[in-house]
Amino acid sequence: MTFDTTPALPRGFRCASRNVGLKPEAKDLALFVSDVDCAAAALFTRNQFPGAPVILGRETIKAGVLRAVVVNSKVSNVATGEAGVQFARRMAAAAASEIGTEAGKVLVSSTGVIGVPLPIEKIETGIQGMAAELGTDPMPGAYGIMTTDTHPKALSARVGGATITWIAKGAGMIEPNMATMLVYIFTDAQFDAATLDAMLRRAVEVSFNMLSIDTDTSTSDTCALLANGLAGAVDATAFEATLTAGCIRMAQTIARDGEGAKHLITVTVRGAKTTPEARTIAKSVVNSPLVKTMVAGADPNVGRLLMAIGKCFDVTIDRSKTDAWINGYPVVVGGTRGTFDDAVVRATLSAEVVTIEIALAVGSGEATAFGCDLTEGYIQENAAYYSS
Amino acid sequence: MTFDTTPALPRGFRCASRNVGLKPEAKDLALFVSDVDCAAAALFTRNQFPGAPVILGRETIKAGVLRAVVVNSKVSNVATGEAGVQFARRMAAAAASEIGTEAGKVLVSSTGVIGVPLPIEKIETGIQGMAAELGTDPMPGAYGIMTTDTHPKALSARVGGATITWIAKGAGMIEPNMATMLVYIFTDAQFDAATLDAMLRRAVEVSFNMLSIDTDTSTSDTCALLANGLAGAVDATAFEATLTAGCIRMAQTIARDGEGAKHLITVTVRGAKTTPEARTIAKSVVNSPLVKTMVAGADPNVGRLLMAIGKCFDVTIDRSKTDAWINGYPVVVGGTRGTFDDAVVRATLSAEVVTIEIALAVGSGEATAFGCDLTEGYIQENAAYYSS
Repeated sequence: MTFDTTPALPRGFRCASRNVGLKPEAKDLALFVSDVDCAAAALFTRNQFPGAPVILGRETIKAGVLRAVVVNSKVSNVATGEAGVQFARRMAAAAASEIGTEAGKVLVSSTGVIGVPLPIEKIETGIQGMAAELGTDPMPGAYGIMTTDTHPKALSARVGGATITWIAKGAGMIEPNMATMLVYIFTDAQFDAATLDAMLRRAVEVSFNMLSIDTDTSTSDTCALLANGLAGAVDATAFEATLTAGCIRMAQTIARDGEGAKHLITVTVRGAKTTPEARTIAKSVVNSPLVKTMVAGADPNVGRLLMAIGKCFDVTIDRSKTDAWINGYPVVVGGTRGTFDDAVVRATLSAEVVTIEIALAVGSGEATAFGCDLTEGYIQENAAYYSS
Repeated sequence: MTFDTTPALPRGFRCASRNVGLKPEAKDLALFVSDVDCAAAALFTRNQFPGAPVILGRETIKAGVLRAVVVNSKVSNVATGEAGVQFARRMAAAAASEIGTEAGKVLVSSTGVIGVPLPIEKIETGIQGMAAELGTDPMPGAYGIMTTDTHPKALSARVGGATITWIAKGAGMIEPNMATMLVYIFTDAQFDAATLDAMLRRAVEVSFNMLSIDTDTSTSDTCALLANGLAGAVDATAFEATLTAGCIRMAQTIARDGEGAKHLITVTVRGAKTTPEARTIAKSVVNSPLVKTMVAGADPNVGRLLMAIGKCFDVTIDRSKTDAWINGYPVVVGGTRGTFDDAVVRATLSAEVVTIEIALAVGSGEATAFGCDLTEGYIQENAAYYSS
């Protein structure tokens, strides 16, 4: 799979972003628009305190038709009650009015501080005239949705005659378990909403749902897929393979840019009794603070690895059959410490990508989880972050 | 309940500790002995890679009789295969020989680095002559089992004519979910092993099993209760109340001394549908990295609190009925941000103990969890900790 490092939006999609006064200077409002109606699917956070845009979004996506996505950063419009949902509706209406469509075809997202009223007037005023600024470069949109990300995240790939473009933000409060942070996927391929929904669910299951920065599940996680059909029909199998590969690639990009992170950690579990058990163990290892600090400290700590596998109480493990590798070196053989040169493995741990593989030999379940190391940078960023 | 801040061992118990060469200078071997056989119960880690001493301990405790406990720090004897279990047996035999009893009446614990062979010869040689050093002061024992603890942990209370004394170590890799780190409870009250086992399980359920430093479950967690009966019979209800209160007090002490911690965080959930649901939510909040860094940063972040409650997907929550307090201030009312003075709550967050209360109003389940803040000190300690 080849991904474009200078991505473009698929034909018929345009975007823009502006500062409308929510942040001091940076872009805080992004608008993504298709020239024609799109078949669409979306997945949202499972958090039981979802933001107002998520409550509205679940209603909006039922029809399976979207024309635009409007996103603000800085204020998440979460824990704002019924007034918050009304503000989200006004935000959809403002975007719809600006581009000439109905509010019911606009997906709204908000990200940022929780429990603060959305400055809706600033958004309603600030969005006016944005339609004239819409362009085919996805980067203004990617910049417009950033919060604590250190860089904008966009990616393109070709499949048949069509293009898929992913635009995302990540950084913290990330263990999606349904969708993820904010990810918008645009394509000019032609599929109906039900097909998009099924493909998106399968792709998210092995990508964003296997990603964890800090085990904290955001109240705003949203992943939407919009297909405007302008490139016509595309082979579904090839499309889904590319869609999935791009979602995995974007999950890795988000993990690598986790708050304070210096390393992408990839944990693959093979030979588990079932796939759910493989997922449980992969997530346990990628989330363990002691494994995360071990990677930050570049120490091949066999004990912490076994601890993080073993603290999954309800999965099948045969200690004497358990093997594990760090960056390809056999650190665990048959449940005990393998023979390896500490200094050599320690040296490989300074690489940007750290790969942990675990073979359980009790079945054929397999899963891969994506995460990052835990550094003082995470603490600094989150202990210094003020909610108001 | 009054606890003695200058604790003593109950009558008939003595202890000692030594440096036998596992650590450069600090004490690394502790021995706790009763003059007569004790009825005993013990709970161990649920981690699926238990240490050799835990494997042996489960066998030892079956008879319900203990005469001594021997503990080394620095090397945990985990992931050491069958040889590790043989070394644990030799450690029990060495202690038994030193004090004149059978190896089957000696509980062995080891704590420290995983995956390294236990230097059993140093222990066998170093323990010789320790019987002559046994004294009634518990502090040498408490010092002898420390790893990254910043202070020794011991506590006494009187119940009827008897004494209960708790000696513990904690600090990291702590989310017990069965027993906890290393906790030894000695009493001269008289109970049979089955009664002790039942009382210990109930006490641990609301104390050490509700404690979490970092969600990581150690491979060595052990909590043992030894009763030598020298004070005769004691009212069981009064005894269990004191036992439970002391376990809660010790859990708080361990949480407060979590690696890098500056605050004890107590999370109480009331009005949950069931007690297990209350436990799930209390643990989710006390374990959330974003809540932990919020306390470290002294910020009353309502959003993070709601996020941490809401990420419990499978519990019953009625958003409009959910209230929460930080240090007594109503930060959440009916699922949205309450009215409170940010600066005032922020000032109270600098106190050593931070209390979070959550009322769900959907049932009568109640639970309290104990944890600590997440600071740069945790990262420094654990990224710098080398496994060999």
